Amino acid sequence: MSKAPASSTSANETGNNRAQLSPGDWVEAALEVLVDKSIDSVRVDVLAKGLNVTRGSFYWHFKDRDALLRQLLTTWRNTMTEQLIDRFEHSDANAETLLHELLSLPFRGQAAARSASIELAIRAWARRDAMARQFVTEVDAKRLAYSAQCFVALGFSLHEANMRAFLLYSYVINESIMGGQGTEQQRNQRREFVHQLLLK
Amino acid sequence: MSKAPASSTSANETGNNRAQLSPGDWVEAALEVLVDKSIDSVRVDVLAKGLNVTRGSFYWHFKDRDALLRQLLTTWRNTMTEQLIDRFEHSDANAETLLHELLSLPFRGQAAARSASIELAIRAWARRDAMARQFVTEVDAKRLAYSAQCFVALGFSLHEANMRAFLLYSYVINESIMGGQGTEQQRNQRREFVHQLLLK
Repeated sequence: MSKAPASSTSANETGNNRAQLSPGDWVEAALEVLVDKSIDSVRVDVLAKGLNVTRGSFYWHFKDRDALLRQLLTTWRNTMTEQLIDRFEHSDANAETLLHELLSLPFRGQAAARSASIELAIRAWARRDAMARQFVTEVDAKRLAYSAQCFVALGFSLHEANMRAFLLYSYVINESIMGGQGTEQQRNQRREFVHQLLLK
Repeated sequence: MSKAPASSTSANETGNNRAQLSPGDWVEAALEVLVDKSIDSVRVDVLAKGLNVTRGSFYWHFKDRDALLRQLLTTWRNTMTEQLIDRFEHSDANAETLLHELLSLPFRGQAAARSASIELAIRAWARRDAMARQFVTEVDAKRLAYSAQCFVALGFSLHEANMRAFLLYSYVINESIMGGQGTEQQRNQRREFVHQLLLK
């Protein structure tokens, strides 16, 4: 994982473009620090130094550190959850295919590994921060509800669908986190096994 | 969660007993800081201040910070995994009961919540540290192997047992992490559902 986001490198290289940093650049820089260090290290002075801009320029975009953290959580929720659900909902795939796609999320290489690191960092933070916890709870609920819809579409009762959605979600998160357990063949067998069991 | 372990409070209250701090007191203090802040905050000076002792007294017990971190990981592995497995192995319970006990681990109130916080903090750390990753991978492998033994004892083939163990483990970790999803009744239903499905 690179220590600095691409945008900061760009800012370093073209100092006269520094003012063109967007709120998204600050969010991305904050996310890097959160994953590489911890939430306590996500400080305006640290980020400004990393982005090679003045501390004061932060306040062009955000009222305070809390506003940045809220934007970080909002961005995480939107990109990792809502965009994903939107994409699925606008595809022509049937429920069976959507289920397969959900089960395949942990197998998307570097992107999946990066997502897992972000998820772990945000969940560790949420154990001791009310705002982060609120976002995580909301994201979990949305993902579970979406997964449950797939099972309803496959003919299960709402109760059965909710139970299966929780197990599906548990599998997807754990396969992402514990990618190191087993060979690629074993991981593929695991996915296929879970797929079949969840349809029983 | 208390900011300081019980043993440090005791040391604070009876300053003349400070020298009686054990290596375990340092490990416990380090674990608190890891969970409440991050691994980067686990520094000898920070811990010494929290324990109200001199920085130098740390070196009575540990060669350096790395030795402390290794001891922290060893303690985590032993208490959360090996002792658990030992306890199960020396009980008279049959495989069906052991399976029920494994599924019930996330329901142990405060102890389970505390374990989940520690697990998340260590896993977040392991995403960017080779030594922590080595311990986490080892712990995961042991827990999976143990769970698989239960399924073998229940009559499943080794392959089937390994698949089921992974799903069981995924459920246990996720139920611990996402305790906020659902009412107590729903959580109990989830556990019962997973139990039944894993035996199919």
